[in-house]
Amino acid sequence: MNGAESLVRSLLASNVDVCFTNPGTSEMHFVAALDRVPGMRSILGLFEGVVTGAADGYFRMADRPASTLLHLGPGLANGIANLHNAKKAGSGIVNIVGEHASWHLQYDAPLKADIEGLARPVSGWVRTSPSSDTVGADAAAAVAAANGSPAQIATLILPGDTAWNECTAGAAEALGRQQPVKAMSSAIENAAKVLARAKDEPTMLLLGGRALRADALEYAGRIAARTGAVVASQFFSPRIERGAGRVPMFRIPYAVDQALEAMKRFRHIITIETGEPIGFFAYPGKPSLMKAEGCQVHGVCAPGGDGKAALDALASAVGAKAGEAKVQLPVEMAMPSGPLSSANIAQALAVLIPENAIVVDESITTGREAMGVTAGAAPHDMIQNMGGSIGYSPPVATGCAVACPDRKVICLTGDGSAMYTIQALWTQARENLDVLTVIFANRAYQILRNEFAGVLAGTPGPRAMAMLDIGRPDLDFTALARGMGVPASKVTTTDELCKAFADGCREKGPRLIEVVL
Amino acid sequence: MNGAESLVRSLLASNVDVCFTNPGTSEMHFVAALDRVPGMRSILGLFEGVVTGAADGYFRMADRPASTLLHLGPGLANGIANLHNAKKAGSGIVNIVGEHASWHLQYDAPLKADIEGLARPVSGWVRTSPSSDTVGADAAAAVAAANGSPAQIATLILPGDTAWNECTAGAAEALGRQQPVKAMSSAIENAAKVLARAKDEPTMLLLGGRALRADALEYAGRIAARTGAVVASQFFSPRIERGAGRVPMFRIPYAVDQALEAMKRFRHIITIETGEPIGFFAYPGKPSLMKAEGCQVHGVCAPGGDGKAALDALASAVGAKAGEAKVQLPVEMAMPSGPLSSANIAQALAVLIPENAIVVDESITTGREAMGVTAGAAPHDMIQNMGGSIGYSPPVATGCAVACPDRKVICLTGDGSAMYTIQALWTQARENLDVLTVIFANRAYQILRNEFAGVLAGTPGPRAMAMLDIGRPDLDFTALARGMGVPASKVTTTDELCKAFADGCREKGPRLIEVVL
Repeated sequence: MNGAESLVRSLLASNVDVCFTNPGTSEMHFVAALDRVPGMRSILGLFEGVVTGAADGYFRMADRPASTLLHLGPGLANGIANLHNAKKAGSGIVNIVGEHASWHLQYDAPLKADIEGLARPVSGWVRTSPSSDTVGADAAAAVAAANGSPAQIATLILPGDTAWNECTAGAAEALGRQQPVKAMSSAIENAAKVLARAKDEPTMLLLGGRALRADALEYAGRIAARTGAVVASQFFSPRIERGAGRVPMFRIPYAVDQALEAMKRFRHIITIETGEPIGFFAYPGKPSLMKAEGCQVHGVCAPGGDGKAALDALASAVGAKAGEAKVQLPVEMAMPSGPLSSANIAQALAVLIPENAIVVDESITTGREAMGVTAGAAPHDMIQNMGGSIGYSPPVATGCAVACPDRKVICLTGDGSAMYTIQALWTQARENLDVLTVIFANRAYQILRNEFAGVLAGTPGPRAMAMLDIGRPDLDFTALARGMGVPASKVTTTDELCKAFADGCREKGPRLIEVVL
Repeated sequence: MNGAESLVRSLLASNVDVCFTNPGTSEMHFVAALDRVPGMRSILGLFEGVVTGAADGYFRMADRPASTLLHLGPGLANGIANLHNAKKAGSGIVNIVGEHASWHLQYDAPLKADIEGLARPVSGWVRTSPSSDTVGADAAAAVAAANGSPAQIATLILPGDTAWNECTAGAAEALGRQQPVKAMSSAIENAAKVLARAKDEPTMLLLGGRALRADALEYAGRIAARTGAVVASQFFSPRIERGAGRVPMFRIPYAVDQALEAMKRFRHIITIETGEPIGFFAYPGKPSLMKAEGCQVHGVCAPGGDGKAALDALASAVGAKAGEAKVQLPVEMAMPSGPLSSANIAQALAVLIPENAIVVDESITTGREAMGVTAGAAPHDMIQNMGGSIGYSPPVATGCAVACPDRKVICLTGDGSAMYTIQALWTQARENLDVLTVIFANRAYQILRNEFAGVLAGTPGPRAMAMLDIGRPDLDFTALARGMGVPASKVTTTDELCKAFADGCREKGPRLIEVVL
């Protein structure tokens, strides 16, 4: 057994059986090991941002890490933006990067780079394996780190000779998954006291992470019904189980002014698996923290902790009972019609999102405020961008579809965002993944026109406008999709959108709809 | 004047008047300043790898740096792979990255990242400007660093408040360009002594950097004619002025075995603006250094130094005279015909490359060994990938075309390579750049099949083959090109290629040819 084989065996023994990859020469022995060791599903991406984003999406839906296999420093570099998003989402990834054979590193070969230096800003755990004998144990340690509490990006760097040399140590298995940290009982007691006064001192129960799954939310709903606290989420969350029949939440607005207005009545914020609300960007003369002066923040459970158990305990402490939670009613809307608008699009989605769908949302301008109405759609998962690096949704949707082959994945994205990682469509075609991509094509980085005013930069003149406009020439996403083997259509009215969306939900396999705004 | 305006004024005063960009919220004031300060040509890329690769191409042809403008850590991250290639090519770039406003950095906002940490592995100079008053001087310092000897990637990080705050210090101008370091006279004398014995002790004159321009090569040709030394280049070089009428060179082969065979007779290597030959990758049981045992390496001029002056001095020292150099004869080949093959393709290019063209080569499998025949084409510049991160050629070709609007740029690339940065086509269309892209579509990471054997990984089995194959589905590059506004055609025979290539050279503006192999 060589090091490459011990790697694959360790991963499989540790319950990591999916590898998203874009390999090169230094990874060829790991690729060769795939044939000798059955059980690893390897999925090729044509660009590394697809690979790392898919691993993020996989973790969010599977609740266990996939591995990646990337080619040296530049291969890692191309994956960093989506590793950043994954890190901010609390996703665990076993991020494997090849390296030159140890003796070659003393020379300035073309691909020589500081791989550890590149990995550190986006990794919670970084290790370069020194020999083929250590690869198996290091892989198991990487899985353990990725499965930690909180989950992490664990970057394992493997010089070529650690792959091809024979090893005596063999494969290893990661220790069992680390249990999420429980909230301290004193924090629960304190929060219960705050909640007991919530009718007089308005209190927000702000949830993140796995506290946004339906079972945890049910406890939060009980607490809210019993105490008058408001269940809320940050503007962006890694994954929310939402829709008709589930506990609805208030979503803190994106815009600082709107957020401050919404937050001004709250005297207390109890946080579970998240922190206090922070502005996405800084703006001249505006605060970074979005809460009223004097508002107290009570951290019950840090990100990665056991939010569900904390909510359970908190519900008991305030005397809330099963069945008390108010749940979301289904939307009672007709199919919309007429010209395309954010409101019509949101209504169409609310009516048409199929039960059990996974909605990956990056509809930055079109959907930013309008998508609230989809809270009353059929029960579904909503996946959002936690790191702000656009181009996350086509790869993440790809990974979600690999994790959940029996569920429809809907990827809602702007035209600007989609172009960073459009190569994901090819992987969706190759793997016949059940992803319906909807491109909202407004031919601009439209959100930046708002942000331009937000940072008090005035009104963009012609040269500035040219940098915010992505028309001239217009992108044709149906051509791009077909170029990568994904059937596509273009719609220009709400009626056409409704028909194409319904068709896309009914048919299995990748499809793309370009919504021309 | 605010900080953003002082930035633009400093860049312009320092002779940096092109900015390749993909900006976001934190960069809006810099974008706004474009309207208030005329003279900066701003060019939008839909992906940051296009932006940084274009800046590399611009430097290689213009011999002066462009600036970039990137959005926070992830925007920089997406540009790192092509910054890596630029660094290895010795290109200077003023790499400007936005950052959150200073007071926002204490919070874990979504886009918060260790920007300096990400920048360091690919930058020779990194600075975060502390205030609007320092932006002007810091920009001038960044230009000076980029223009250094050797040229560098200079990364300047600008928090949002350094852009929007008023400043009292104003713009600054970079000190004059640093002169390249001259070779020491002792090194010249030593090399001259080696050359005097070259007929008995075979000697290679190995050139890199600007020593590969026609004027410097002419000195090298004189030396060779007088002494019997062999003028040579590494397998990859940043830019070579070659073709009929110019001094030809021996190119050290890529494959280690072939390189060792070619190098075994040389007792001495004299290096000018490059180092001793290093294997691209490490292979089991093969050396990293590609030279004979006992071969002595004589470094005359380090990368970034004044190679031309060193060659001039060396020519004088060995008594070589103007007019002695042997120059390349024009190819005397007919237009090829018949099925597509590497040989036919190379012959077609040799016949058809127009005079004064800039050829950006990333035709990894199709062109790796066959392109030698183009040395007899009409005089042209050949640009190669120095960092090994594939996906360099469409962006670099974009930057070359911006630097040299009156010259035809020909981008030769594999299908696998092209997909990393295919978004460059859109920028070529928007700016109406005169780039003819030729995609050699073999539907595979074909080179990896060779490398698989090279690292002794055996024969790829079906699972490994699936990771080396990029068919299923086949990419349709004509659809992808049209989706981004670039006219495209597909060819399947040598005759069709010759016609499409000739047409593409005659017409101005971006075109793409997909060569189906």
